Amino acid sequence: MPRNPRFDILFDPVRIGPKTAKNRFFQVPHASGMTNANPHVRAAFRGMKAEGGWAVVSTGACSVHPSSDDSPFPFASLWDEADVRAHAVMTEAVHAHGALAAVELWHGGAAAVNRTTRHTPLSPSGVPWMATHVGFMSSARPRVMDAGDIRDLIRWHAEAAVRAEQAGFDILYVYAGMGYLPYQFLLSDYNHRTDAYGGSPRNRVRLVEELIDTVREATGGRCAVALRISLQELRARPSESAPSEAHEVIGLLKDAPDLFDVKMDYSATDCAPSRFAPEGSHEPVVDFVRTITERPVVGVGRFTSPDTMVSMVRRGVLDLIGGARPSIADPFLPAKIAEGREDEIRECIGCNICISSWHDGVWVRCTQNPTAGEEWRHGWHPEIVRRDGEGSVLVVGGGPAGLEAALTLGRRGFKVVLAEAARDFGGRLLWETRLPGLRQWFRVVDYRLGQLRRMPNVSLHAESELGADEVREFGADHVVIATGARWTANLCGANEVPTRPLAAPRVYTPDDIARGARVEGPVVVFDFDNYYMGSAVAEHMAAQGLATTYVTSAGSAQSWGIMTNEQPLVHQAFRKAGIACRTLQIVEDFDGEGVTLAQIFTGEQQVIPARSLIVVGQRTGGSPLYDALREDMRSVVLTGDANAPGAIAHAVYQGHRAAREIGLVPQRERRDAPFAMRDIAPPREAAE
Amino acid sequence: MPRNPRFDILFDPVRIGPKTAKNRFFQVPHASGMTNANPHVRAAFRGMKAEGGWAVVSTGACSVHPSSDDSPFPFASLWDEADVRAHAVMTEAVHAHGALAAVELWHGGAAAVNRTTRHTPLSPSGVPWMATHVGFMSSARPRVMDAGDIRDLIRWHAEAAVRAEQAGFDILYVYAGMGYLPYQFLLSDYNHRTDAYGGSPRNRVRLVEELIDTVREATGGRCAVALRISLQELRARPSESAPSEAHEVIGLLKDAPDLFDVKMDYSATDCAPSRFAPEGSHEPVVDFVRTITERPVVGVGRFTSPDTMVSMVRRGVLDLIGGARPSIADPFLPAKIAEGREDEIRECIGCNICISSWHDGVWVRCTQNPTAGEEWRHGWHPEIVRRDGEGSVLVVGGGPAGLEAALTLGRRGFKVVLAEAARDFGGRLLWETRLPGLRQWFRVVDYRLGQLRRMPNVSLHAESELGADEVREFGADHVVIATGARWTANLCGANEVPTRPLAAPRVYTPDDIARGARVEGPVVVFDFDNYYMGSAVAEHMAAQGLATTYVTSAGSAQSWGIMTNEQPLVHQAFRKAGIACRTLQIVEDFDGEGVTLAQIFTGEQQVIPARSLIVVGQRTGGSPLYDALREDMRSVVLTGDANAPGAIAHAVYQGHRAAREIGLVPQRERRDAPFAMRDIAPPREAAE
Repeated sequence: MPRNPRFDILFDPVRIGPKTAKNRFFQVPHASGMTNANPHVRAAFRGMKAEGGWAVVSTGACSVHPSSDDSPFPFASLWDEADVRAHAVMTEAVHAHGALAAVELWHGGAAAVNRTTRHTPLSPSGVPWMATHVGFMSSARPRVMDAGDIRDLIRWHAEAAVRAEQAGFDILYVYAGMGYLPYQFLLSDYNHRTDAYGGSPRNRVRLVEELIDTVREATGGRCAVALRISLQELRARPSESAPSEAHEVIGLLKDAPDLFDVKMDYSATDCAPSRFAPEGSHEPVVDFVRTITERPVVGVGRFTSPDTMVSMVRRGVLDLIGGARPSIADPFLPAKIAEGREDEIRECIGCNICISSWHDGVWVRCTQNPTAGEEWRHGWHPEIVRRDGEGSVLVVGGGPAGLEAALTLGRRGFKVVLAEAARDFGGRLLWETRLPGLRQWFRVVDYRLGQLRRMPNVSLHAESELGADEVREFGADHVVIATGARWTANLCGANEVPTRPLAAPRVYTPDDIARGARVEGPVVVFDFDNYYMGSAVAEHMAAQGLATTYVTSAGSAQSWGIMTNEQPLVHQAFRKAGIACRTLQIVEDFDGEGVTLAQIFTGEQQVIPARSLIVVGQRTGGSPLYDALREDMRSVVLTGDANAPGAIAHAVYQGHRAAREIGLVPQRERRDAPFAMRDIAPPREAAE
Repeated sequence: MPRNPRFDILFDPVRIGPKTAKNRFFQVPHASGMTNANPHVRAAFRGMKAEGGWAVVSTGACSVHPSSDDSPFPFASLWDEADVRAHAVMTEAVHAHGALAAVELWHGGAAAVNRTTRHTPLSPSGVPWMATHVGFMSSARPRVMDAGDIRDLIRWHAEAAVRAEQAGFDILYVYAGMGYLPYQFLLSDYNHRTDAYGGSPRNRVRLVEELIDTVREATGGRCAVALRISLQELRARPSESAPSEAHEVIGLLKDAPDLFDVKMDYSATDCAPSRFAPEGSHEPVVDFVRTITERPVVGVGRFTSPDTMVSMVRRGVLDLIGGARPSIADPFLPAKIAEGREDEIRECIGCNICISSWHDGVWVRCTQNPTAGEEWRHGWHPEIVRRDGEGSVLVVGGGPAGLEAALTLGRRGFKVVLAEAARDFGGRLLWETRLPGLRQWFRVVDYRLGQLRRMPNVSLHAESELGADEVREFGADHVVIATGARWTANLCGANEVPTRPLAAPRVYTPDDIARGARVEGPVVVFDFDNYYMGSAVAEHMAAQGLATTYVTSAGSAQSWGIMTNEQPLVHQAFRKAGIACRTLQIVEDFDGEGVTLAQIFTGEQQVIPARSLIVVGQRTGGSPLYDALREDMRSVVLTGDANAPGAIAHAVYQGHRAAREIGLVPQRERRDAPFAMRDIAPPREAAE
């Protein structure tokens, strides 16, 4: 299809200093979990975006010196020649598709506590970064940088810039954001210096300015120099000469970099979950930059709608459409718009499983795009699947795993029948996405159903519950069973708290709520799953006017939500909804009138009134259909939550993998295949 | 000195199946944070223990298959030939000193959620391991193993055993502990199977038995086979035929392995902090094993006293003295006993910084032994320092950093003067080790003072406060300043909560308490440091009879204590002491009668009565003496907490590093030296 002329503006070239981006699609620096120890994994992941039409493709944070060591969080480095070779693999992959390669030069300062290199952390004035405050970080506090340290920092940037150019990068970032060292110089909270680098905004921007100049000089003006800057706190601070300190700072720096990359200050606002923030949520903070500087501005906002992108450009907010999460969910987003296929975009759902992967210390994963991070290890392409399927496959279950399996099997060329017992496709997402804030997650279903409905070799059958005999009679060559998992009413189980049946009435699971159970208040939601379900069900109960208390065994509401940037926002949502929150508690008993809680570490007990108890804890998979078929059918696979319950990302991944492998490897071996976590070729061999 | 004959029994050889340990010192498997990506780092770390006299030196957990992937926690693997070569570097280092090398074959089951390999986790019955319960782990739940999976697991152990023998290991472990897969088969809480591997204890031990037989057969009986087993939960469960299920299980397995390695079930009990558990704390759980089996038994208990070790052997509790933490604190513990130098043992203080390193995902660190983990990268030996020091050094400050600096400088041969302003040496530890439970931490001081007092080239001067002029007049060639840090009364600071001075009386820091401030109750201890000080001060206040409330910004008391296994025990100690605990709260104000708290995420306020407020948050370093001297003195170094406040381990490390480098590299460069985190030679090249 031809491109919609409405979107032509998105394909204008944009000059960035000495370089030119071929269009306005700019994959800004974002974490990938891929370090210099995984050059090929990283190159394949980043190169895929260049292939998909992004004009600029960036690294994640790239340390300029061992005194900026974020371990165990994954980060790249440009410390020496081996690093140059490791990065060159990526820039080659990016250049191969006509895109520019950008590198985010990074010094973490007080936010990088150097657990591996054991350097003392650096800071303008000895103030630790906030994460120490939350308590899970380190007891190492930064030292105060002296004048020599500042000279060193500038020199390290110069040396890293030289290496970056050698590695083939076109755009070099100076990074003054997210609590990292140059950012700490910008903010008076962290910068109490009395030298030329502290005090007035003029003095506080000095370091950033010098870093920009240094990087430009080090590369003789051949590379473009970008400034990435967080503006949320600065914009909240008054200025004597401008509407805010942010205005003043941008005013002082307006001619310094070749590009401004503008963003928020904290994970939860910068990479905000869709549950609590809409597309374009940065705009109120970053909208002014374009009015002060002539240099191009790039910013993000989980943009997946080309109309929204056009609006950002036309309204003069951004020159380049930054993408991080949407570029992971669909590396081919620009190409699809360019080809008039915008309805085929695999839209980011904003669940933040991607950022949780970085918090987990591993390669990036994506709920929508199961090939993300697997481009090199598995050789998976997000758009292209080898058409090697012969024969027919029956997929039983139309939730996330079944839909993904059917889609990938269809692409492989199998004749696919997808059978779903319910009236609609979507499985658990049908109800879950009706919970407060989760609507956008239904994109997992929308994208797949949209694709499946166009495929001539796939047929979709709702309201089709199948027994073992019917499956056998159907006679498919392969059967995929993806019938999902069920929540149980077990109180913890395992050995912390003995599982025993609760004799009381009105004990529910999320499945009961999904089926429309009429719950009496006051209600206690007991969460030891600690992902979104417990807090979302609590919100759902409160929205129905029930007095709701959320109880968790963990130290905070939806404690795993710290991985997905949801945690602070969940607490705020609870307060707004009037939901009481009890942490570090286990439910020991319930008699229909009160819930007995015990402190998880001490066993200290108390009773709180409740007419209903919702247990959000364990899920159990398994499939009687699978058990009935496995002995006599040649090819039957259990996948998704029915195989091993997990997040939606796990289900989609399992469904994809099962579909990729069907008919290719014997089933038993399929499970064993050693997918080593090592990149086969270590950095030193990368360029040879 | 000749060996004390009382300790001769510790040097008896012990037969372990086909192998013989040359004495009873057995470094049991423990985490080092060193993976197969760091073969030389690991070999140097483990080899040092062999050099120090340990008869057996083991790896940490070594995965037998990609379906056991503990990332981001560091772990070793034996998946392929490259792994064999990586391990061979270590076994060679161990054999070079006449020790046996042991490998802990490991499958994590439900406790390993395979974040990198993305295999679905395995389990006997689909029950997740408890850590999920605490909420910071994964939303991936395990699948239920079928008969084929069990066959696979056994085969993977056989294949790993073959590789282990190729790599040069003498003793191969089967690991049924700490929640890992074979352990989950042993416990009815996790094992609900109805096949031959579930139900009765006889059935539940079947897998372990088959794994032992398989490993032995795979290596043709040439290697010894050890069983590592956790007994805490089993011993708490009744048995029809024995005093406990633990007795029954050991009875069933008594002839299966060549060695029993017996332990507890949970980090906090297995590797218990000295603050809450004495030396030998496993004994009540593991003491019975030796009465049932003829096979040798090894166990741990943070043993550093040779008399205790002798008692364990003579009383028939253990045949081999297991060491993990004490072998890190002093790799030469056996050699020192052998040579009659037991008073020179650098005794483990039980602070658990070592295990925190693993939780942090990095190489092992030790408070007592700053060379731990640095044997290869820095070439540091825990006992031998090159005697290259010429001239004199004045060390100012006799806390952990100053003591360590003086000791290492003394060993280098410098003429060292250590000047301490106070009456006694020890710095912050003088008072801190008088807080509840922290007495053993004074070993940091005892060891160093004991060594320093024997050194002819070191003189110690207490009650010697020095000004800049006095230091100049003293005329030392080098000056090391290690004058420590101070706690501040700042309320958080940084930008979560604006720092402002509190006008109220009776606001204290830990330094005030150390100086003997008389505190009025009720008292609130506000902790946003989140390591031990806040909780220890709260205990200290409660011990004086004051009504005490502990308030923290984090989700649990001493939240960083989850890294050091202290966290559950702190909550228990609070309950015992009647200390109230308020989590997720920030102190917003204090007027001398009440403290205003705000929920950290929502800002919701409440006031609690308090006459006194102790703020345990930020520390500030710096030294006016250093500032006065740095411009005109050729060689002056600021180190320890005065340079960058941290844990005691950070101070000792800084002091050690400063002392190693003085006179060798220019000061500015010393800071920059890139100590890369990569092992220069990757695994594939290790054996070439």
